[in-house]
Amino acid sequence: MCSVISRVNPVQRYLALTLRLRATTEGSSYAAAEIRRFCPGLSAVTDPLKATSRSYCSRMALTEGLLFRQLFESESSTYTYLLADTETKEAVLIDPVLETIDRDLKLIHELGLNLKVAVNTHCHADHITSTGLMKKRLVRLKSAISKYSGASADMLLSEGDKISFGKHYLTVRDTPGHTDGCMSLVSGDQSMAFTGDALLIRGCGRTDFQQGCAKKLYESVHQKIFTLPDQCLVYPAHDYLGQTASTVGEERRFNPRLSKSADEFVNIMNNLNLPKPRKIDVSVPANLVCGVQEV
Amino acid sequence: MCSVISRVNPVQRYLALTLRLRATTEGSSYAAAEIRRFCPGLSAVTDPLKATSRSYCSRMALTEGLLFRQLFESESSTYTYLLADTETKEAVLIDPVLETIDRDLKLIHELGLNLKVAVNTHCHADHITSTGLMKKRLVRLKSAISKYSGASADMLLSEGDKISFGKHYLTVRDTPGHTDGCMSLVSGDQSMAFTGDALLIRGCGRTDFQQGCAKKLYESVHQKIFTLPDQCLVYPAHDYLGQTASTVGEERRFNPRLSKSADEFVNIMNNLNLPKPRKIDVSVPANLVCGVQEV
Repeated sequence: MCSVISRVNPVQRYLALTLRLRATTEGSSYAAAEIRRFCPGLSAVTDPLKATSRSYCSRMALTEGLLFRQLFESESSTYTYLLADTETKEAVLIDPVLETIDRDLKLIHELGLNLKVAVNTHCHADHITSTGLMKKRLVRLKSAISKYSGASADMLLSEGDKISFGKHYLTVRDTPGHTDGCMSLVSGDQSMAFTGDALLIRGCGRTDFQQGCAKKLYESVHQKIFTLPDQCLVYPAHDYLGQTASTVGEERRFNPRLSKSADEFVNIMNNLNLPKPRKIDVSVPANLVCGVQEV
Repeated sequence: MCSVISRVNPVQRYLALTLRLRATTEGSSYAAAEIRRFCPGLSAVTDPLKATSRSYCSRMALTEGLLFRQLFESESSTYTYLLADTETKEAVLIDPVLETIDRDLKLIHELGLNLKVAVNTHCHADHITSTGLMKKRLVRLKSAISKYSGASADMLLSEGDKISFGKHYLTVRDTPGHTDGCMSLVSGDQSMAFTGDALLIRGCGRTDFQQGCAKKLYESVHQKIFTLPDQCLVYPAHDYLGQTASTVGEERRFNPRLSKSADEFVNIMNNLNLPKPRKIDVSVPANLVCGVQEV
């Protein structure tokens, strides 16, 4: 296991989760008070504006010295994210796409960054990752993916692992349901969550192939993402409507699928009747080996 | 003229511009020192990372209580920007597109915002604005555009005008060259610049129609945008490569056209040999009247 990974103490997260679930399911003022007592960074308020009156737009910037860029690949509507420490120039790239490798490498070069880790939030079915090819171009680069994905990579991650870059880090939260190996990456100050296909803006990843399970996805999102602070920015792996970001508070309130009960959610997901992804037979085998198979 | 507009004192801007030009053209340490003395918010450093080590990723968030969303319309590759004061809920929308009016109005409604102004950075040739139709759906909404655009709107803006929303505001900088009526909008703390078609990420708007003038565009960008702080985020009206933001420091250094001399820039722009925009004959007449002509 690479040295950039380390474990974090899950106690406060467990407390927050337990109390948040009580607040959500029981509407209890007791639970809200307990959340404030044990987890002062969290809030039970559900109005997305009220909850975020001080720093709604991008709390991430309150983390000083963090470079952040959102990039888009239009054929598969995939977002790639570049994060870096502006002092040490160590950087992490999330969900890079083969078609845009030259654009991404050019930006990394222009900004003088030292890309340490290229991480995939899961084994994608709709595009081929550029991780493998990028490793050939950047000799010290490490690839990373969930250990439950079945894919090979330099770093196999699971719940609580950290990816460090300079003084910043991302923490892994396992969020299976779209696939068994889906994970979300949460910034150290919980101001940003990179949710992969688990939670999209007003949507979510499908659950009808690749170990998909609607019940599991519902639990993942409610226990691992909706327990983050309301103002935490949600950066998904895809968007098809030109939306670039949301917040946990907004998705908890306005997501047309995940704001429903678990039973309603399962019913919705089991009746989507979506066509088979066009690239799945090429993408999945390639992405099991960092995408190099097709290069 | 609507009450949300007011004039600002141009003295500090003039000082900054004069000194910045000296720093740029003469490489003078005197000029850099003078910039620090008169304009402590500005810097003569040109390394985009060194210049921004404390708050590179999105200084905008250091303005508390500011909501910010970037939205994309894929047919014309246009970015629409929503900004709001999270306390008063007053909001401004920049460059809304007719095709995405329902998405934008839904988001505004979900977030409980009071949209005061819908502003176009210029009279677009590649898409029809939704401003006019939006005014029919939101009764108190005002439309805004440059007074040099030749278009009609509730608010006709020019250099130094402010668009206020709650405790925040955007200041108008005239940036002609792509069209005579192009303007950029700069946030009060100079952390964000909405540059329309004047400055794109590693590019710029064309200058071969609609009063286009390469020399004028070069002067606009160098005098009105490149004089902003290095870490000021650049949010353009379009991007065709999946890039979502840049910074003034980066564009000053890496923009393949505008980092050149004025003569080289004019030569590049006069030899692009681009096809006529597909929608220009429909878009421009419609956008001269807030886009309602075609509704």
